[in-house]
Amino acid sequence: MSTVLNVSSAVQDRQQAIQQATAADFSSLFTTPFDVELVGRKNCENLIGSVAMPVGMAGPVKMSWQHEDNKSTSDEVRLPLATTEGALVASVNRGCKAINLSGGAQVFVRKIGMTRAPVFSCPDGETAQNLIKWIDQHFMDLKTVAEATSSHLRVIEFQAWQRGRQVFVRFVCDPDQAMGMNMVTIAVQRMAEAITQALPEVKLVAVSSNACADKKDSVINRVLGRGYQVQAEVKIPGQVISNVLKTDASSLVAVQVAKNLVGSNVAGSLSQNMQVANVAAAMLLATGQDIAHVVEAAQASTTLEIDGDGVYAAVNLPNLNIGVVGGGTWLPAQTQARQLIGGGQEIDTYYLASAIGVAALAAEISGMSALAAHHLAKAHQDLGRVSQVAEVSGSQS
Amino acid sequence: MSTVLNVSSAVQDRQQAIQQATAADFSSLFTTPFDVELVGRKNCENLIGSVAMPVGMAGPVKMSWQHEDNKSTSDEVRLPLATTEGALVASVNRGCKAINLSGGAQVFVRKIGMTRAPVFSCPDGETAQNLIKWIDQHFMDLKTVAEATSSHLRVIEFQAWQRGRQVFVRFVCDPDQAMGMNMVTIAVQRMAEAITQALPEVKLVAVSSNACADKKDSVINRVLGRGYQVQAEVKIPGQVISNVLKTDASSLVAVQVAKNLVGSNVAGSLSQNMQVANVAAAMLLATGQDIAHVVEAAQASTTLEIDGDGVYAAVNLPNLNIGVVGGGTWLPAQTQARQLIGGGQEIDTYYLASAIGVAALAAEISGMSALAAHHLAKAHQDLGRVSQVAEVSGSQS
Amino acid sequence: MSTVLNVSSAVQDRQQAIQQATAADFSSLFTTPFDVELVGRKNCENLIGSVAMPVGMAGPVKMSWQHEDNKSTSDEVRLPLATTEGALVASVNRGCKAINLSGGAQVFVRKIGMTRAPVFSCPDGETAQNLIKWIDQHFMDLKTVAEATSSHLRVIEFQAWQRGRQVFVRFVCDPDQAMGMNMVTIAVQRMAEAITQALPEVKLVAVSSNACADKKDSVINRVLGRGYQVQAEVKIPGQVISNVLKTDASSLVAVQVAKNLVGSNVAGSLSQNMQVANVAAAMLLATGQDIAHVVEAAQASTTLEIDGDGVYAAVNLPNLNIGVVGGGTWLPAQTQARQLIGGGQEIDTYYLASAIGVAALAAEISGMSALAAHHLAKAHQDLGRVSQVAEVSGSQS
Amino acid sequence: MSTVLNVSSAVQDRQQAIQQATAADFSSLFTTPFDVELVGRKNCENLIGSVAMPVGMAGPVKMSWQHEDNKSTSDEVRLPLATTEGALVASVNRGCKAINLSGGAQVFVRKIGMTRAPVFSCPDGETAQNLIKWIDQHFMDLKTVAEATSSHLRVIEFQAWQRGRQVFVRFVCDPDQAMGMNMVTIAVQRMAEAITQALPEVKLVAVSSNACADKKDSVINRVLGRGYQVQAEVKIPGQVISNVLKTDASSLVAVQVAKNLVGSNVAGSLSQNMQVANVAAAMLLATGQDIAHVVEAAQASTTLEIDGDGVYAAVNLPNLNIGVVGGGTWLPAQTQARQLIGGGQEIDTYYLASAIGVAALAAEISGMSALAAHHLAKAHQDLGRVSQVAEVSGSQS
Repeated sequence: MSTVLNVSSAVQDRQQAIQQATAADFSSLFTTPFDVELVGRKNCENLIGSVAMPVGMAGPVKMSWQHEDNKSTSDEVRLPLATTEGALVASVNRGCKAINLSGGAQVFVRKIGMTRAPVFSCPDGETAQNLIKWIDQHFMDLKTVAEATSSHLRVIEFQAWQRGRQVFVRFVCDPDQAMGMNMVTIAVQRMAEAITQALPEVKLVAVSSNACADKKDSVINRVLGRGYQVQAEVKIPGQVISNVLKTDASSLVAVQVAKNLVGSNVAGSLSQNMQVANVAAAMLLATGQDIAHVVEAAQASTTLEIDGDGVYAAVNLPNLNIGVVGGGTWLPAQTQARQLIGGGQEIDTYYLASAIGVAALAAEISGMSALAAHHLAKAHQDLGRVSQVAEVSGSQS
Repeated sequence: MSTVLNVSSAVQDRQQAIQQATAADFSSLFTTPFDVELVGRKNCENLIGSVAMPVGMAGPVKMSWQHEDNKSTSDEVRLPLATTEGALVASVNRGCKAINLSGGAQVFVRKIGMTRAPVFSCPDGETAQNLIKWIDQHFMDLKTVAEATSSHLRVIEFQAWQRGRQVFVRFVCDPDQAMGMNMVTIAVQRMAEAITQALPEVKLVAVSSNACADKKDSVINRVLGRGYQVQAEVKIPGQVISNVLKTDASSLVAVQVAKNLVGSNVAGSLSQNMQVANVAAAMLLATGQDIAHVVEAAQASTTLEIDGDGVYAAVNLPNLNIGVVGGGTWLPAQTQARQLIGGGQEIDTYYLASAIGVAALAAEISGMSALAAHHLAKAHQDLGRVSQVAEVSGSQS
Repeated sequence: MSTVLNVSSAVQDRQQAIQQATAADFSSLFTTPFDVELVGRKNCENLIGSVAMPVGMAGPVKMSWQHEDNKSTSDEVRLPLATTEGALVASVNRGCKAINLSGGAQVFVRKIGMTRAPVFSCPDGETAQNLIKWIDQHFMDLKTVAEATSSHLRVIEFQAWQRGRQVFVRFVCDPDQAMGMNMVTIAVQRMAEAITQALPEVKLVAVSSNACADKKDSVINRVLGRGYQVQAEVKIPGQVISNVLKTDASSLVAVQVAKNLVGSNVAGSLSQNMQVANVAAAMLLATGQDIAHVVEAAQASTTLEIDGDGVYAAVNLPNLNIGVVGGGTWLPAQTQARQLIGGGQEIDTYYLASAIGVAALAAEISGMSALAAHHLAKAHQDLGRVSQVAEVSGSQS
Repeated sequence: MSTVLNVSSAVQDRQQAIQQATAADFSSLFTTPFDVELVGRKNCENLIGSVAMPVGMAGPVKMSWQHEDNKSTSDEVRLPLATTEGALVASVNRGCKAINLSGGAQVFVRKIGMTRAPVFSCPDGETAQNLIKWIDQHFMDLKTVAEATSSHLRVIEFQAWQRGRQVFVRFVCDPDQAMGMNMVTIAVQRMAEAITQALPEVKLVAVSSNACADKKDSVINRVLGRGYQVQAEVKIPGQVISNVLKTDASSLVAVQVAKNLVGSNVAGSLSQNMQVANVAAAMLLATGQDIAHVVEAAQASTTLEIDGDGVYAAVNLPNLNIGVVGGGTWLPAQTQARQLIGGGQEIDTYYLASAIGVAALAAEISGMSALAAHHLAKAHQDLGRVSQVAEVSGSQS
């Protein structure tokens, strides 16, 4: 099956077939500003072309960041945002200005690991209980089996829940610099096979059970984490709030409570933020990530509290899934977008997570200020009229 | 403030500045395969370039669709998917094949309308109660105020919830062929101003309160709807399941119960699907939508039930926000992606919603089958080795 | 089947059988301080005796209340609380004192109606859509069928959701002065039979589908309401906060934000209160309600905001299910507990709902103050030592 | 403050005062079939009397149970249910009959421990991070401080979440045979004091933060557990389903999927059961528990799957809070109710949890069968007519 097809000619064949079927002009869609052979093999079957997403830049923004080993760095970071939603880049940019005038953002990053949760069925509850004990007792063996599938993978731990006679086992793995969902799936499949081979009564229902949870709203990913946990914070003095953000501390906190804390609850939502989805989508897209992971990234919590004459502002993203190798990360423009963050150099996952955290913080600060100042609608109205919005206050959400 | 800047030269200035600051090669990122002047004005501030997303094509797939007025059409539809996640297009394509061999998908679309929910504060609960009554009594006046802001906007209804002395009012509007979030925000801001002018005791806290709910997980959007509600369904005979999907009806239903119905619950998730986020992201991106709306689109419900010797399969998306005008919809490649769906012609929002529904159905059918057949890991493993995967069974989720 | 057994002698037979089987002393459990014949027929099969729950009294508390017709009354109300949890009555009592010194509570009550949601299955999605249309078109006929089952029942409206080819129809009924769950089930069963008779393709899966939702956490009951919606509120001056509640306004609001608004979210909970479950359980139990409805009552939202030098406090219960006829409401002590609220007279459901609302408000005010003053643990520790706690600050939650 | 008042005379004074104020008959409410002195001191301030709740008996039911040390016992257990909801005891009883004819239920119990989660505020996120590290490093010291407050308490572990500069720390404790909420609060208060004394920058906001989560719906308690986790299960042959439960396996599973799995989701509910709240309320009340804990108990998951010609049925209660000492457990009738379960002897918490699990299983089996057979409404209708329902099929939910 592994015959080497010429992807380029296959793309041309498809384009020609479409052209003949429709007699329309697809010249823009049929553009492929990347290596068609590679994309056709690695990223996208039945390739016919591409869509270009505009990239705007926010920042540079001052960021001090820290990861588990207590190494701390301070940088000025440019933020590439792939978006077609007018006002978003301007909003993030205004947030960056406020952050810079407040001395920069502090970021904390922690790697939790990628998770995949197969579900097994047993003949009865007792067998289900024994299955969990067995996995616990043979964890090191399973780890060996799993880690043989990739030199980049480490199995960290597992959690398990019984429901009737089914067992949901959530394996947590470190996929190194990759986002790792595929790598982890392959490893978990091997572990699942080892389990069912050792315990013939136990059947694998599916290698993925939604207890993972991948690309869905979930509380489990916030309670236990998934991918990376990032928090970015800054204390903004009163003067910066009035000069740059055109509002005041108490109005900001009033919107925080009414919108993020109570309004989310009215909606039956377990997210407590304004527009993290906007900025997460734009950053994931620009840097070559799996864009569907915006669902998990959007489950963020924003904090705004009175601090002196200003506010303490923070954004906490409990499950951010990213990588700098694998998937779409190798694409040339996306690679360069990450290098833009890194000041010309490739960055690691911690750095990328930090940059997304700061971008989210900037977006929340600016967006919430626009709401507090009643400028949100105005920003969008102006956008239709003026050519270049010097200081747009907020994007939608 | 409305001086007409030359966007092109501003972009070049930015590119030059970045180049000088970093001394790296940004030639791929700095590419702009669209009208820089227009994009810089309408879609993206501080424009520096673009990222290209590969577009693969699934289908054509047979689709009969119906909207509220009972008009029904039947078409063969091509599905453009912008993605870098290998196996997704192949997975959707396999689902399309199964659908076609089963006689095509049936789609139902209903426009709910775009919502925006301002939050007002009152001196006490009684004033809050009176506010709701006042809005009810003056709804026609408010509608007039709102509809004066755009000839494309119609205010349909409102819902209101009191919490203490604050009131969350959720206005539901029909923004015609646009997704409409900005249009609706402007109109709601006008209504909010009319309200606070008539009732001086009432203050607007924020024009958006998260009870909207925009780009967050929420139950309110599933209970009351938002944007478009789409359901796509098909009955797949046993033979198609075994020949094309390489599994059987009872295995499929077992995975449905264990994963989508129970596993989601283990995760504390209120979505009941496998990979709708993947396909929604790819379709929204390809067709020029606001990509952050994948958060809402991902809150879908998949149904798989035994039907004769096969299965009844359906996907229900209760809040899909899309448009064919406004935002990024005008971009040339994205416009052509919609025309690809339309067989060479621009489509309306109902048609686009239907196509997304069918794509989601195809992805769920194929992806769930891959899980049931224990092929998910294999699909991803093969992908690294072979040049062109003839029949990849499923993408991640 | 309707032979008239002698319940009393059946109870005695059971008691004797237990005595013989175990040789233990069950004299306290075997006590029956009510009409055994009636209880054995109406409330409890296989009756063997009773447990007595201590009832403490809080208040009198000043309460102004208002229902939809804008009638407003002002009363001093005694609150009977059936509980074994030390500190609860004292906590509510302290809250009542604070409310009284602040001029009394303002209460708003609204009857939503009791709901029951059957689920129907159809051969396909189109039939499911037509089912919803059919119900809409024949609503008046169905109403007639339903209302023939009881002179106390009115069918108000219905809501419907389609999932695949199943339809969840949520009927909202006014059961007059009863809580009405049984009455509504019988009426809905008749409507379901009328529907399936008219539409032979449509099958009733179950008369209750959990979309009701009865005695479970749910967002639907908060978005759409169920039973009664009650809000009680009061503005507490700074002096009352310091003298009676031993804390200050800003500490109270700090606990509100950290615990009720953010802490609930950390827990993945959609309730935003401190101890409404405690007080709802005690009031439902004392007044003869279905005690399992504490699950719905506990889904309350507490508000605490700075107001002048004090706070604005409110509790909002979106789905409180109560009655003054039917079920256990006729039991002698429980009847008298309601009469205690009514100053010696039976009360209606609006009045009972109001009293529960005020009790919840008092409990939240006092309990949150105990937390803010760091007295919660102390209150419980003291309880073991002293004979009568003059001013216990808070119960658990 | 610890003067010894005469509670009895205080009760009489209160009764007299009420009598004078209202001139109504409160003789039933003013009944006190327990030691007034003790109840007035330990369980209920401002005691005025009691309400009696009828207790019906279900069973005996065969139960094999197992706890962590793999000890397994098999017993015939009587289930005391305190309820006024007609049909509940009969429904549980029918479930018991089905369980007995199927060979008895298998129960698994696991003690998780009682939790209490204080929230601390810090000057910034870095201090918040250091707080978590400090607690981790000083856990044994904190444990010593906590365990000095009671010889019955053991601190097991802690979990922590950061939100901005606040930290939610969830301590898990083993309170031996008590439910333990008060005991744990006192111990956690001491630990919180030790923490803030050692780290002066850190302030305790509240000893309870709703991340506990006590008496609220929550996902955290299902993911991490709280109190006891219980699962009861049984395989019911087809003949028992048809003879006793008057339905068939496939109808039962159809209702399970439509109601418990999908309908709950339509409601935005994260519980997946029919009527666990009913039976949990009745068992908690009968056995002297804190009745507000029905909120947590109700978050149960029911499983019904085809097994041979019958079904595999299970109920899983992930957070059941109970005790056999402390609170209202000492009350005479409630003590005897537990002894009724124990065949004349006091039981331990594991045994009580098991009995509640089996009762829940019996209720689910019978109630779901009533729905599947379309007998629910009929059962309630008959109840008004006949004197003694030989075989009532289901209670409400």
